Amino acid sequence: MLKQLFSKLEDYYEDMITIRRFMHQHPELSFQEYNTAQYIKEFYEQLGIEVKGNIGGNGVVAKIYGKKPGKTVALRADFDALPIHDEKDVPYKSLVPGVMHACGHDGHTATLLVLAKVLNELKDDLEGNYVIIHQHAEEYAPGGAITMIEDGCLEGVDVIFGTHLWASEPTGTIQFRTGPIMAAADRFEIDIQGKGGHGAQPHKTKDAIVTASQLVLNLQQIVSRKVNPIESAVVTVGSFTAENAFNVIADKAKLVGTVRTFNDDVRQYIEEEMERIIHGTCYLSGSTYNYLYKRGYPAVVNHVKETEFLIAAAREVPEVTTIEESEPQMGGEDFSYYLKEVPGTFFFTGAKPPGANPGYPHHHPKFDIDENAMLIAAKTLGTAAIKIHQSK
Amino acid sequence: MLKQLFSKLEDYYEDMITIRRFMHQHPELSFQEYNTAQYIKEFYEQLGIEVKGNIGGNGVVAKIYGKKPGKTVALRADFDALPIHDEKDVPYKSLVPGVMHACGHDGHTATLLVLAKVLNELKDDLEGNYVIIHQHAEEYAPGGAITMIEDGCLEGVDVIFGTHLWASEPTGTIQFRTGPIMAAADRFEIDIQGKGGHGAQPHKTKDAIVTASQLVLNLQQIVSRKVNPIESAVVTVGSFTAENAFNVIADKAKLVGTVRTFNDDVRQYIEEEMERIIHGTCYLSGSTYNYLYKRGYPAVVNHVKETEFLIAAAREVPEVTTIEESEPQMGGEDFSYYLKEVPGTFFFTGAKPPGANPGYPHHHPKFDIDENAMLIAAKTLGTAAIKIHQSK
Amino acid sequence: MLKQLFSKLEDYYEDMITIRRFMHQHPELSFQEYNTAQYIKEFYEQLGIEVKGNIGGNGVVAKIYGKKPGKTVALRADFDALPIHDEKDVPYKSLVPGVMHACGHDGHTATLLVLAKVLNELKDDLEGNYVIIHQHAEEYAPGGAITMIEDGCLEGVDVIFGTHLWASEPTGTIQFRTGPIMAAADRFEIDIQGKGGHGAQPHKTKDAIVTASQLVLNLQQIVSRKVNPIESAVVTVGSFTAENAFNVIADKAKLVGTVRTFNDDVRQYIEEEMERIIHGTCYLSGSTYNYLYKRGYPAVVNHVKETEFLIAAAREVPEVTTIEESEPQMGGEDFSYYLKEVPGTFFFTGAKPPGANPGYPHHHPKFDIDENAMLIAAKTLGTAAIKIHQSK
Amino acid sequence: MLKQLFSKLEDYYEDMITIRRFMHQHPELSFQEYNTAQYIKEFYEQLGIEVKGNIGGNGVVAKIYGKKPGKTVALRADFDALPIHDEKDVPYKSLVPGVMHACGHDGHTATLLVLAKVLNELKDDLEGNYVIIHQHAEEYAPGGAITMIEDGCLEGVDVIFGTHLWASEPTGTIQFRTGPIMAAADRFEIDIQGKGGHGAQPHKTKDAIVTASQLVLNLQQIVSRKVNPIESAVVTVGSFTAENAFNVIADKAKLVGTVRTFNDDVRQYIEEEMERIIHGTCYLSGSTYNYLYKRGYPAVVNHVKETEFLIAAAREVPEVTTIEESEPQMGGEDFSYYLKEVPGTFFFTGAKPPGANPGYPHHHPKFDIDENAMLIAAKTLGTAAIKIHQSK
Repeated sequence: MLKQLFSKLEDYYEDMITIRRFMHQHPELSFQEYNTAQYIKEFYEQLGIEVKGNIGGNGVVAKIYGKKPGKTVALRADFDALPIHDEKDVPYKSLVPGVMHACGHDGHTATLLVLAKVLNELKDDLEGNYVIIHQHAEEYAPGGAITMIEDGCLEGVDVIFGTHLWASEPTGTIQFRTGPIMAAADRFEIDIQGKGGHGAQPHKTKDAIVTASQLVLNLQQIVSRKVNPIESAVVTVGSFTAENAFNVIADKAKLVGTVRTFNDDVRQYIEEEMERIIHGTCYLSGSTYNYLYKRGYPAVVNHVKETEFLIAAAREVPEVTTIEESEPQMGGEDFSYYLKEVPGTFFFTGAKPPGANPGYPHHHPKFDIDENAMLIAAKTLGTAAIKIHQSK
Repeated sequence: MLKQLFSKLEDYYEDMITIRRFMHQHPELSFQEYNTAQYIKEFYEQLGIEVKGNIGGNGVVAKIYGKKPGKTVALRADFDALPIHDEKDVPYKSLVPGVMHACGHDGHTATLLVLAKVLNELKDDLEGNYVIIHQHAEEYAPGGAITMIEDGCLEGVDVIFGTHLWASEPTGTIQFRTGPIMAAADRFEIDIQGKGGHGAQPHKTKDAIVTASQLVLNLQQIVSRKVNPIESAVVTVGSFTAENAFNVIADKAKLVGTVRTFNDDVRQYIEEEMERIIHGTCYLSGSTYNYLYKRGYPAVVNHVKETEFLIAAAREVPEVTTIEESEPQMGGEDFSYYLKEVPGTFFFTGAKPPGANPGYPHHHPKFDIDENAMLIAAKTLGTAAIKIHQSK
Repeated sequence: MLKQLFSKLEDYYEDMITIRRFMHQHPELSFQEYNTAQYIKEFYEQLGIEVKGNIGGNGVVAKIYGKKPGKTVALRADFDALPIHDEKDVPYKSLVPGVMHACGHDGHTATLLVLAKVLNELKDDLEGNYVIIHQHAEEYAPGGAITMIEDGCLEGVDVIFGTHLWASEPTGTIQFRTGPIMAAADRFEIDIQGKGGHGAQPHKTKDAIVTASQLVLNLQQIVSRKVNPIESAVVTVGSFTAENAFNVIADKAKLVGTVRTFNDDVRQYIEEEMERIIHGTCYLSGSTYNYLYKRGYPAVVNHVKETEFLIAAAREVPEVTTIEESEPQMGGEDFSYYLKEVPGTFFFTGAKPPGANPGYPHHHPKFDIDENAMLIAAKTLGTAAIKIHQSK
Repeated sequence: MLKQLFSKLEDYYEDMITIRRFMHQHPELSFQEYNTAQYIKEFYEQLGIEVKGNIGGNGVVAKIYGKKPGKTVALRADFDALPIHDEKDVPYKSLVPGVMHACGHDGHTATLLVLAKVLNELKDDLEGNYVIIHQHAEEYAPGGAITMIEDGCLEGVDVIFGTHLWASEPTGTIQFRTGPIMAAADRFEIDIQGKGGHGAQPHKTKDAIVTASQLVLNLQQIVSRKVNPIESAVVTVGSFTAENAFNVIADKAKLVGTVRTFNDDVRQYIEEEMERIIHGTCYLSGSTYNYLYKRGYPAVVNHVKETEFLIAAAREVPEVTTIEESEPQMGGEDFSYYLKEVPGTFFFTGAKPPGANPGYPHHHPKFDIDENAMLIAAKTLGTAAIKIHQSK
C-alpha cells in the first residue's frame, strides 16, 4: 500500500513541480486568491473528485472516499502569497510585481493536489475518508481557517495533519513537537495623547515622545520581570511614530507592535499587564491613551498521540533521514484553529535549497525551496493519512 | 524735538496702518521676499532717501544724514512671513494661501518705514546719522542678519536698536533686559542604525526603537543633572520616527529636536555632552549613529549701557505706561548677530490686541497685533535714536 | 528482589525517621558539618561497611560490593543545613539557634543511609557495586561536589542517581526531566564609581545613583531583547546600596545580583553582555566601574537514557502514583558536576506535608517534609540501582 | 562717623581674631550651643550692654540705643558648628573631635561681637537703635531663626542685614543680589514596598529595586520637562538603599533626597508633581509607597531698596575692591525667615584664604577663612547700620 503510494507520488513528481512553478508565477494576496482557488477547484473537477469552492471565503475542500471503513482524515495546505517583490533570478519568478510566494504555500498546494490525486487513484484499497482542505489567507489575520471551520470543513473529521516546508532545515529532515510548536501572534496599537507646544517651553506641555519612550522601556519589564522565566514570550514595539518639526514638542505618539506567546495564561496576562503599564506610564505625565490589543492566531498546540503517530509514519518514508524535535517557533500559523477542534499535528518538512547556507529566510525577497521536499512532504502526509486507521 | 517727532508720527499713523495691512495681505516666505523688498526700496526712492537693495540677499538699507555731528545709529526691522495659513477673519487677511505674517514683522516694517520718513523730515535738526536696516529672513536659519552684516550694513554704525511687537503683553508696556534676552536656538538630528529582524526574534536584532527610547530618556539628564541649575537650558526631542510593520523589529530610528541656551559655554557643553550620551546609548545595543548638531542663532545678549539708555528713552514716551524687566525668552532671534558687532539693545513692545485674553501666541494661525503698538514702538525707537548722541 | 528491597526498607522506616529527626535537631552549616559527617561514618562502621571520611572535605563515601558482576552505581545525598532559624513547632525542631535543615537534606541522608544498609544486607544477591556518596556543602558555592570528585568519589562509577525531596509536590509524585532540570546559578557584583558632591550642584558631579538606576533598567533588556525567547534566563539585581545624607550626591553605588540560565552559551553570553551594558551605562555619565561575575553551579543536565530508565524504575514502586515531567527549575544544585563526569539523572520526589496547601517553600523558617516521601525516595533509588545492570 | 567706626574696628581687629579662634577651638553642634551662647552673653554683660539669652532656644539678643532718633536696625550672625572632624593643621584647630566650625559661623560671631562693641562705644553719636541677633542652629532645620522671631527678636525692627563669609570669593569682594539669593532646601523620603522573593522567580514578585530605579529616572523629568526652564530647580536622590542577599528579589527600597528652588510656586509644584510620579511609577509594578516631603528653609529673598542701599554702603569701605552681583546659590539659609518679616538684605563677604586656589569649600574638613574678611564684613555691616537712617 505504501509502496503504491510512494511509487505513484514519484511518478507525478514532475506534475508537482509544474503546478508549484505555475503558482509561483501567479501569486495572489491573502483574501484575493480567486484565480488560485479556481485553479484548485478545476484540478479536482477534471479528475471527477468531489470538490466545493467558496468555503468560508476562497477556501476549497475536496473529498475522497475510501472503499473500506475507517476514520475521516483531513489534510490541509494553504495557498495565499505575500506582498513582497520577487527578487530571485529563476525562470518561474513571480509575474506579479510586488506579490510573491515567499513562504512556500505554492509548494504546499502542489504537494496536496498531487497527493489527493494519488489517494483518489488508490481509493478502492483505502480505509476511511479524506478531506482535502485547501485554505486561503493564512498570512493575514484573522486568516481563512476560522471561517472555513465555521463553514463546515471539519465536519465528521477525526484527525488532521498539516506540514510546512521549512527552508532553514535540510531536505530529508522532519521536525515534530508535542504541545506548542508555533506561538500565538498578537498585535497591539497604543496611541498616546499628550499636549504639544513650543520646543522651548516644555513646562507647558505633556511631551508625548518622552512618555512613549518611557513606555517602550517599561514594556521590557513584562518579559524580564513579570513572565515566568520558563515560559517564552516576546513583546516587540515594531513602530514608533511621532513626526513633527524639530522645534515643537510632540502632542501625540503611536506605538505598534506584536506579542508572541505559547501559553494562554501568559497571553492573557500580558494583554492585561500591558494596560497596567500603559496606564501608569501615562499617569506620570498626565497623558491619555488608546490601547488596542488584537489577538492573532493562537498557538499551534500539537496533540501527543497524533504527534507520536506522525513520527512513526515519517520513519516509513525512505527519503526521511532525520526525525527530530523542533524548537518552539515564535511565528504564528492559523493551523491552530483546526487543532482546537480535532486532534492532529503540524510538522515541518526540511526544504533548504541545496547549496544554500544558510539560505534566505521565509518572507525574504529571494526565498526559495528545494522542490524535492514536496515529494517527502507528500509521502509523509500520505503515509500518516492511510495508516492512521490502525492506530488506537 | 521729541515733540515734533511724536507729532509727526501721530500724523502718519494712518499710513503706518495702511502699509502694515498691505504687507499683511501680501506676505512672503523667508528668502523669497522679493516684492516686499521692492516695496520698501521704492518707498525710500519716492521720498528721495538714499537706499540700497540686495544687501546680503533681499535686505534693504536706507540712510538719513542729520545736519549736526553725532553718532551713527542703526534701527532694524525684519520683514519675512511664515508658512502658516491665515485663519483670521479680518479684511486685511493674507491673500496668499499658506503664508502669513504670524509674527508681526509686517508691523515692524511699517513702524520703521514711517519712523525713517519722519527722521528724514527732521534731518536738518538732527545730530548724527541713521542707518535703517530692513532685514529679510529672520524666521529661517541661517537668517538674513549674517549676510547683511557681511555685506556691510553695520559699517560705521555706533549703536543699534531693535524691537519686537509682543502680543502677549498689553499695549503700553516696554520690556527690557540686560544680558541674555533671547536664547540660542539650535537643531539636532540623530540617526540610529540598529539591526532589524522579525518581531518574534529580538535576539537576532539590535532594536533601534528601544535604543532611541533610551536615548530620549538619557538626554533628559543633561538638563536635570549636567547643566548648572542656575543656567537655563532646554533639550527637546520634537520628532521620533521609526515606522514599520507591527511584526518587525526596527532597524533604524530618527530623532530630531532643538536645544535652547543663553550661555555659550552651556551651549558648547550640551553639544558635546549629547554626543557622549548618544555614543554610550548606542554602545549598549551595539548600534551605530549619525549625529548632526546645527547651530541656529546665538543668544541675543543686550548691552548694559544701551539697555539702561533705552529705559530712559521709553520713559519719555507718554503712551508707555509700564517699563519692566522681561524674563529671558527661550525663542531665538538673529538680532543677536548685530549685538556681537556693535553695542545696542533689543526690547519688546507690548502689542496684545484689546480684549484678547490671553490672545493668540506668535506663530498661531489667528495671531494678530494691536496696531496702536506700532506708534509706541516708533516713538520709543525714535526717541532712543535722536537722544543717544548726548549719552556717554 | 524488588520485593525484598521494598520489604526491608519498610521494616527500617522507623529508623529512617529517627535518623532524620536526629539530624533535624542537630543541623550544621555548609563546610562545617563535622558531627554529621562523623555520624554518617560511624553508621557504616558499625555495620561493617567500607567507608571513608574526609573525601574532598567533610564528604563521606561508603562502598557495597554485590556478589554478581554488574555496573558500578553511585547514589548521592547531601547533608548540610542552612543559616535559617527554625520556627516550626515540632518535637524535632532544630536545637541550634539560627541553623536549620530547611531544604530536606536531613531526609536525603536518612533515606540513603537506610537504603545503603538494605543494599548491604542484600549484597549476596546483587549485581554490580554501589558507591554511596554523602556530600557535604551543597548549599554554598563552590559546593562539595567538585572536591569530592577531585578526591576520586566517582572512580569506576558507571552511572549516578540522586533525588531531591520536593515539598511543593504531593507525596507519591516523581518528577523527571530530560536535559536541563535545574539552572546555572551565578552571582555578580557591580561597583559604580561616580563623583560625589553637594545635592544642590549636580553639574559638578557624576551622580552614581542615577547611573546605577539606569543600569538596573538597562540590564532588563538582556532577557527582554538579547536572549532567544525560547531559552530561559533570569537577571536579578537583588541589592542596591548607596547610602548617604539626603543633601549630597552619591559618589558610588553597589549592585549585587544573580543570573540563572540552563544553556551554557546563554550563560556565557549574559556574562559578556552585562559587561557591555555596564560599560555603556557608565560611559554615559563618565563613571568607572568594577564588575565581578562569579559562576556558581552549572545547570543540572540529565542524560536521556538514564532518565528514561529512572521513569521505568519509578513505575515499579507501588507508592508512586504520579510520574510526570518537571518544569525546569531556576534554582541551582551541584549535582550538575557529577552529571558532567558520568551519565545519570536527578529527580524530584514529592514530599508535601499532608494538609499543607500550598505548604512552606524550601528555605522557609517553617519548612517541613512528609516523612513518608523518604520511603518512596529510597524505593525508587533502590529500584534504579539494582535494575540498571540489565539496561543497555 | 564712618572714619571713627572703621578706626575702632581696626583697633579691635586682634580681639576679633582671638574670639574667632577661641570659638573655632570650641565648636558646638546646632541646638547644643550652650557654652557659645553663654560666652556671647557674658561678652555683652561685661560691657554693660543690654542682653538676653535663651531667645527661642540658645539665641542671644543684645540692644544698643543711639542717642538720636532713627530706625531700628537688626544685625544677625549665627554661631553653631557642624558634625565634621577638623582636619586642618593650624594652632586653632577644633578641640572637639567630630565637631568643627566648617562654615565660618565662628567668624560671623566674632565680627558681630566686635562690631556691637564699637557701636556701643559710638552710641552717643548714633541715630536709631541696634538689635544684635546672635542666632543658634542655622545648620539644622528647622533652624533657630523661627523660634527667635516667635520669641520677639524682631520686635520694633525696621530693617535687617546679615552676611556670610564666603570662602570661594577673594577677600575684598562683596556679592549682592536683588530677589532670591539662596534657595529653599527641602528634604524628601520615599519608601517603596514591593513584594520580595527568590532571585530566580521574578514573576512571583514586585521588584522594589526595579521600581525605585525607574523612579530615580522618572524624577529627572521634573527638572528637564516640567519646570519652566528659566526657573532654577534641583531634584536630587542622595540615598538609595535596598540591601539584600544576591539571590533574592528586594521587597522594599528607600530613597532620600533634596529639592532646591527659588520660587514658591515651583517649590509647591515639585512637591505635588513628585507625588504624581511616585504614584504612577509604583502603579506600574503594583507596589505601594510612603512619601514624606519635609520643607526646610524657604529661599532667601532680598529686598530691592535695602540691597541697593547695601551696595552704596559697601562702596564706602576702602578694603572693598569688588562689588558684584552674586549668582543665586542653591544652598539654604534660615535668614529667609527674617526677610519675610522685615525688609533687609543678605550678602556675601569674600573670605578666600590667601594662596588658596580654589581652596576648600564650605563644609569641608579642611575649610578655613581669611580672617581679614571679618574686618571687611564688620565695616560693611557697620556702615549700612549707621547710614540707613538717612535713606528713604
